[in-house]
Amino acid sequence: MRLHTAPDHGVVGAVATAIAQAGGIVMAVDVAESSHERLVVDVTCSAGDADHAKLLEQAVDAVDGVTVHKTSDRTFLLHIGGKIEVRSKVPMRNRDDLSMAYTPGVGRVSMAIAEHPEDVWRLTTKGNTVAVVTDGSAVLGLGNIGPGAAMPVMEGKAALFKRFADIDAWPICLDTQDTDEIVRAVEMIAPGFGGINLEDIAAPRCFEIERRLRASLDIPVFHDDQHGTAIVVLAALTNALRVVKKQLADVRIVVSGAGAAGTAIVTLLLAAGAVDVVVWDREGCLSRDDESLPPAKHELAQVTNPRLVRGDLHDGLTGADVFIGVSGPNLLDPLWIKDMADDAVVFALANPDPEVDPAEAEKYAAVVASGRSDYPNQINNVLAFPGVFRGLLDARASDVTLDMLLRAAEAIALVVKDEELNPNFIIPTVFHPDVPKAVADAIRG
Amino acid sequence: MRLHTAPDHGVVGAVATAIAQAGGIVMAVDVAESSHERLVVDVTCSAGDADHAKLLEQAVDAVDGVTVHKTSDRTFLLHIGGKIEVRSKVPMRNRDDLSMAYTPGVGRVSMAIAEHPEDVWRLTTKGNTVAVVTDGSAVLGLGNIGPGAAMPVMEGKAALFKRFADIDAWPICLDTQDTDEIVRAVEMIAPGFGGINLEDIAAPRCFEIERRLRASLDIPVFHDDQHGTAIVVLAALTNALRVVKKQLADVRIVVSGAGAAGTAIVTLLLAAGAVDVVVWDREGCLSRDDESLPPAKHELAQVTNPRLVRGDLHDGLTGADVFIGVSGPNLLDPLWIKDMADDAVVFALANPDPEVDPAEAEKYAAVVASGRSDYPNQINNVLAFPGVFRGLLDARASDVTLDMLLRAAEAIALVVKDEELNPNFIIPTVFHPDVPKAVADAIRG
Repeated sequence: MRLHTAPDHGVVGAVATAIAQAGGIVMAVDVAESSHERLVVDVTCSAGDADHAKLLEQAVDAVDGVTVHKTSDRTFLLHIGGKIEVRSKVPMRNRDDLSMAYTPGVGRVSMAIAEHPEDVWRLTTKGNTVAVVTDGSAVLGLGNIGPGAAMPVMEGKAALFKRFADIDAWPICLDTQDTDEIVRAVEMIAPGFGGINLEDIAAPRCFEIERRLRASLDIPVFHDDQHGTAIVVLAALTNALRVVKKQLADVRIVVSGAGAAGTAIVTLLLAAGAVDVVVWDREGCLSRDDESLPPAKHELAQVTNPRLVRGDLHDGLTGADVFIGVSGPNLLDPLWIKDMADDAVVFALANPDPEVDPAEAEKYAAVVASGRSDYPNQINNVLAFPGVFRGLLDARASDVTLDMLLRAAEAIALVVKDEELNPNFIIPTVFHPDVPKAVADAIRG
Repeated sequence: MRLHTAPDHGVVGAVATAIAQAGGIVMAVDVAESSHERLVVDVTCSAGDADHAKLLEQAVDAVDGVTVHKTSDRTFLLHIGGKIEVRSKVPMRNRDDLSMAYTPGVGRVSMAIAEHPEDVWRLTTKGNTVAVVTDGSAVLGLGNIGPGAAMPVMEGKAALFKRFADIDAWPICLDTQDTDEIVRAVEMIAPGFGGINLEDIAAPRCFEIERRLRASLDIPVFHDDQHGTAIVVLAALTNALRVVKKQLADVRIVVSGAGAAGTAIVTLLLAAGAVDVVVWDREGCLSRDDESLPPAKHELAQVTNPRLVRGDLHDGLTGADVFIGVSGPNLLDPLWIKDMADDAVVFALANPDPEVDPAEAEKYAAVVASGRSDYPNQINNVLAFPGVFRGLLDARASDVTLDMLLRAAEAIALVVKDEELNPNFIIPTVFHPDVPKAVADAIRG
């Protein structure tokens, strides 16, 4: 906040007090200008969220003799001008450099690829490049905000690709939400990329898009909201079950949410050996004899709910060992956890507000995980996608297989050593240095 | 070249002699391994072109006691792994960084754009980003080699964008050569880019693609092979006419080649005030009464050849002041230049082999320019496109106008000061530090 105040240094103390009383944390106070008429003061402080920041601003503005001139938000400041850039890896100092990197030298390199198409992997960036493709239809928990508004997220993803796996990723935000057009757009841009990361595309459209692209392209296609989430959930569940000493094949698992993430999680859990998985969604409990379900959910119903469970989510949870929520906020009453089996495992992954408050869930469950970074056991896709693509690119893979996903999940789980494992540490943090390489090695097999 | 030789240091001298006799230049000799049985020697030398390099290799291999084990090409070495990379501009050191650059902080930035779509220019890389789009149908002088083989050129272009105008450009090599599909692909990827640079797309398809994209997109679309070339040609011609003291409106101009470059050059010359422009192509001399011409050439014929010239190129050149070739090698007999008007200007721009050898043309013409870097007056698009897009992005322009192109050409011409101007210096070199800014300022107007 930039403040204009009377030239009385006592006012600055009053501002600090006002911020503290309103629950903010003052980080720095810089006097930018001082004259006989007024002071210009820059106050940097931490707020809990955007609403809290507004409150702090009002509190400061209410201090006698103080006007808030301007408020900046350091998150917004960080995003100005975007978060990624392109750099040349080759020198461009003189004519000689230019004639090798560009014409006429580049002509020989192009002809070499024309004669041996496989050389595009060696002689261009293709081999280290991923397109982060979205249609902006299901961005974070924000919904269908369109391709422009999705840009900051896709750029952030590209920055993460670089940070965690040294991959050159570029955001491709598509101005269409038509399945056929999205498929065709990705097919058309594919020659310059070594892999396709689909991102924040709404279900059920995302399933068909991925299936068709996998069939038509010779580079790997990975929908991170599905498979990235599924890998990290399976890794976390593997370790949660190590903590409570149960076997995946024996536990009863309830999944809330049959969207992109839920569907992929169920598929991977079954591939890993889970047997008793029941899925709840807006339509209620998915069941194979329910002909009214839309196609994607009907398909999911065929491979789940072996005991033909009926009823509501509370009924389903009774006696269950594991709850995995990838649905919406506050769908789970913490008291229902008491009705689950002993040593219940609760993953409440809805973002930003989980199915149940992790602090409440902890009272009744043996192990709790969420998508939030302010509680232990954060389920974060950053653990998976950088290493997954590192492995795919290094192996020059043309497909992503279920086996690869299983191995990646196992690799993440194993990063947590036996002596580290406990209910509050079932999954490594995103900054654990071993994770990307462990995942990449596992993907390469 | 890596050589295996007998352990006799005299052999190295013989190798150097062999290279020199074959016309190569030895840059360095490194003994990589030395034993009683053999020497392993790395010889670095310069060759004129790939064929010459082969000759040098044969010459070395013919030296007694020497085997060429392996030959590497430093141009190819430069391209391995590609020439560009993506970098994060924001720190990613800790949880706090992550939560601002990615979730949850990025959500507020995305919501801000959803509410105020124009903010995408400020809060993402869009405002500094150009898509370099090709279908691989007319790559350099190499022809239709496809999108994969076009990658090294598009990457080089992206590197040049960064080097000369600090623009973040990314190659988009499309796996289609269908006009409708190319248009739709570019429309779909447009939200993430601030401008579209079309590159190496064959005529006449390129005209329709550009026209349709300019109509449908709200970001500027610029086909460099057309307008970049036209800008630099007009700049060079402006200065050539300063040298020979003639006016653009008075001179008779012969253009050879009615492809992408030729068409754009003619359009810009006419807009700049040229009156008497006659175009030759495979079909002969374009004339407005020739109903057999394909549509694009027919259109060009309507605005050129006011004197209804007939005959072959030699006839057309007789009495002409200016020849501009953007066609093919060796179409112009140097002796024909004698039949041109006094103080003839000859631009032989076909790549890599010009319409007439510049050294021969110089004997008869007052000013000669070519596309080659080994003669004076190189007509190089690098003089135009970086500054053009810098100006377009800075102005947040939605269109490219003919006026902008004229101003850009004038700006490049004016970089050559009166006291510098002479027949061998009508155009600045690509490394002239003033050019990109001068062009950007001119584009902004």
